[in-house]
Amino acid sequence: MPLFNKNLSKIQTSKIRQFDTYCNQFKDVIKLTLGQPLFPTPAPVKEKAVEALRNNITTYTPNRGAQVTRETVLRYCKQHFGVGYDLEEIIVGVGTTEVLAASLCAILNEGDEVIIPAPAYSGYEPLVLLNNCTVKTVDTASDGFQLTAENLKKHITPKTKCVILTDPSNPTGASLSRDNRNELAAFLATTGIFVIADEVYNRILYTNDYRSFGTYPELRKQLIIVNSFSKSHSMTGWRLGWVLAGKEVINEIAKVHQYCVTAASTIGQYALQAVLDPQTEKALAHMTASYRDNMEYACRVLTHAGFDCKPPQGAFYLYLSTANFGIDGDTFARRLVQETSVAIIPGDAFGDAYKDYVRLSYCVDRPTLTEALRRITGFVSKL
Amino acid sequence: MPLFNKNLSKIQTSKIRQFDTYCNQFKDVIKLTLGQPLFPTPAPVKEKAVEALRNNITTYTPNRGAQVTRETVLRYCKQHFGVGYDLEEIIVGVGTTEVLAASLCAILNEGDEVIIPAPAYSGYEPLVLLNNCTVKTVDTASDGFQLTAENLKKHITPKTKCVILTDPSNPTGASLSRDNRNELAAFLATTGIFVIADEVYNRILYTNDYRSFGTYPELRKQLIIVNSFSKSHSMTGWRLGWVLAGKEVINEIAKVHQYCVTAASTIGQYALQAVLDPQTEKALAHMTASYRDNMEYACRVLTHAGFDCKPPQGAFYLYLSTANFGIDGDTFARRLVQETSVAIIPGDAFGDAYKDYVRLSYCVDRPTLTEALRRITGFVSKL
Repeated sequence: MPLFNKNLSKIQTSKIRQFDTYCNQFKDVIKLTLGQPLFPTPAPVKEKAVEALRNNITTYTPNRGAQVTRETVLRYCKQHFGVGYDLEEIIVGVGTTEVLAASLCAILNEGDEVIIPAPAYSGYEPLVLLNNCTVKTVDTASDGFQLTAENLKKHITPKTKCVILTDPSNPTGASLSRDNRNELAAFLATTGIFVIADEVYNRILYTNDYRSFGTYPELRKQLIIVNSFSKSHSMTGWRLGWVLAGKEVINEIAKVHQYCVTAASTIGQYALQAVLDPQTEKALAHMTASYRDNMEYACRVLTHAGFDCKPPQGAFYLYLSTANFGIDGDTFARRLVQETSVAIIPGDAFGDAYKDYVRLSYCVDRPTLTEALRRITGFVSKL
Repeated sequence: MPLFNKNLSKIQTSKIRQFDTYCNQFKDVIKLTLGQPLFPTPAPVKEKAVEALRNNITTYTPNRGAQVTRETVLRYCKQHFGVGYDLEEIIVGVGTTEVLAASLCAILNEGDEVIIPAPAYSGYEPLVLLNNCTVKTVDTASDGFQLTAENLKKHITPKTKCVILTDPSNPTGASLSRDNRNELAAFLATTGIFVIADEVYNRILYTNDYRSFGTYPELRKQLIIVNSFSKSHSMTGWRLGWVLAGKEVINEIAKVHQYCVTAASTIGQYALQAVLDPQTEKALAHMTASYRDNMEYACRVLTHAGFDCKPPQGAFYLYLSTANFGIDGDTFARRLVQETSVAIIPGDAFGDAYKDYVRLSYCVDRPTLTEALRRITGFVSKL
C-alpha cells in the first residue's frame, strides 16, 4: 500500500510561496510577491480583540461561529453587497482557504470535474486534486481575462460538479463586465452545477459594474459564496472568513468544517463586531483609494516602460505579459530579482499556460512602489 | 451523480455537541458536558496577544508557523516531555483538530483501516470516514480502559494504516501504565503502521507513570504526535495546536495544512511565546491541582452515591458506568437533565458499545461541582 495519500503526489508547495522563498536569498529585496496588504488592521477591530482578551472571551464558540459574529457578518453582507442570508446559512471559518476547502470536500466525489477559469489563484487546483477530482481549465486570456458564458459552456460535461468564479480575479484584477456576469448567471441557472463564488477581493474595486453572485435569486440553490476579511480589512494573519449557502448545502459543509477545524478563533470572531464601525469603513476607504492610486501610477509607468498594461477593475495585482520583451515570465522574474532585487511572481504560478506573464502586487507604500518601478524600467530597457 | 460527498452521509454532528444543544432547552442547567476548562488563559499569554495587536503583528506567517513560534513549541516539548524534534519537523496549526485532520488526510488512502482504542473521542471516526476508510475499534473496557499490546495485535490486518493512541484518554481519563506503554511501543516498532499519538491531555496528569511516545526512538519513523494548548492552558478558543513528525511525513502533512487552512492565527502564534514564562507554568500548576482536587472529591461523592468510580490518571473527565442503577447512559443523562438540570454526556457518544456509561467533565468551579454532585446523588437515590 502507498505510504501517503496518493492524491498528494500530484500536489506541490505553492509556486507563489516557492518563488517568494527563493527570493529570500537576495539582499534588500523589494517584495511585490504576496497579497499582503500594506496597512495595519483597522483600529476598531484591534480594540475589540483587546476587549475580548481583557474579558476572557477565549473559550470555544459553536462550530459555525458565535451567534453575534454570524449576525455581524450577515449584516455586513447585506449592507455592502445587498446579499441576504439567514443565521442558519453561514459558517464563519478559518479564512477563505478553510471554508473553500470544506465546501469542495462537501460536494465532490472521486472523478468529478471542477471548472476553473484561468489564470487562477494557485490554491484551487490542489484542493480539487486532494478530492481525487479533475480540474478543467477555461482560458480567459483571449477574452481579456473575462469569462464568458459561451466559453464556459464549451467546458461543461456530464461530470462537471462545479465552477469556481473569482470576481475580482487574482491574479489578473479583472472583474466581470455587467453583461458577462448576467449571461453567466442566466446560463448557470440552467445547469445543475454548483457555483462557488470566491468574492475575497470584492471590497477592492475600481468599477461600478460589480455585483455579487449572491444577488441573483435564480442561482441561490446552487450557490456557495466564500469570502474573508483578510484582503479588504488587512487581516491576513487573523484567519477569518465565511461561507454562505442554502441550508441543505451549508449543513454538509458544516460537517467537514466541524471535524476538520472545530471553529474559528474566538478572539478574532469577537473582534469582527467592529467591521460595522464607521471608523473601520473609513480606514477601508483610505486603503482602497491608495490601491487605486498605486494601480493607476504603476500602469502609467509600466506602459511607458513598454508593457501592455491595461488598468484592472479590482484587487491589487497587475498580471503583465512579458512577450513584448522576448522572454518568458519565469526568466523575467528570476533575472529581475537577481539583477535588481525586485521580487514578483512568474505568471505560470497561476496556470501552466501562462509562461509569458508575471504577477506584481502593488499593495505596498508609494516610495517602495516608485523604487521598484524605477528598477523594473531600468531592467526592461536593457532587454 | 450524488449531490454531496458520499462519505458525508455516514457522518453526523457530534453526539457531544448534539446532547449539549439538547440541554440548552432546560433552565439554569449546570453543564458538565464539554471539555471547556474553567480557568482563564494565563495572563502572560493574553499580554503577548495584546502586544501583537499593539505592534500590528497580524499579517501572514509561513504556512507551518512563524519560526519563533515553532522554536517556542519545540522548546516547550523538550522541557516538559523530553521530546526533541527539529524546526523542519513541526507544524503549528489550528488546534489539534486541524493538525489531526491534516495528518489523517496525508497518510490515508481509500479502504485503509484505522485502529481506534475505545471508548474514544468522537472526533476521530468522522475524519476516518471522510477519507473513505474504515475504523477498527479495540474495546478496552474489560482491561480497565488500558490498551494492551496483546489486545491491539489481534486487530491488525494487512490493511491497517495507523493506530490513534490517546494518552491520557478522553473520555476515560485513563493513562497507560508503564508496562503497557513499553509493550505497545515495542510491538508497534515491529509493525510498519503509523502511530498517531494524541497527547492533548498530557499536562493534566495524576500519575508519575506518564511518558510521551515521542521518547521512544524506535517509534520515531512512524510516529505522528498531535497536541495543543487548548486544554492545558485553557486556550480552547484560540485554536492553536501542533504536530510533530519526521521530515518525510511532515512534508506531506504540510501540503494538506497549507491548502486547507494556510496557517494558524498570527496573534495567537505570537502569544505562544509566553508558554515558556514561569508565570504561565504557575497558572498551570494551580489549574492541575484544582482538577485533581475536583477529581478526588467527585470520586468520593460518586462512590458513596453507588457508582463504581475509580480515580483516573489524567484529563478532567469521569467515565461512569450506570449499570449499577439498572438504566442505560442515554436514559440516565436525559432524565438527569430533565429532573435535576445537570447536564452530562451519554457514554455512547464515545462508541456505540458504551450504552451503559456517561461522561462527566469536572473542570468547573468547586461550588458548581458540589451542587451538581448533590443533585446527582439525589437523582440516583430514587432510581
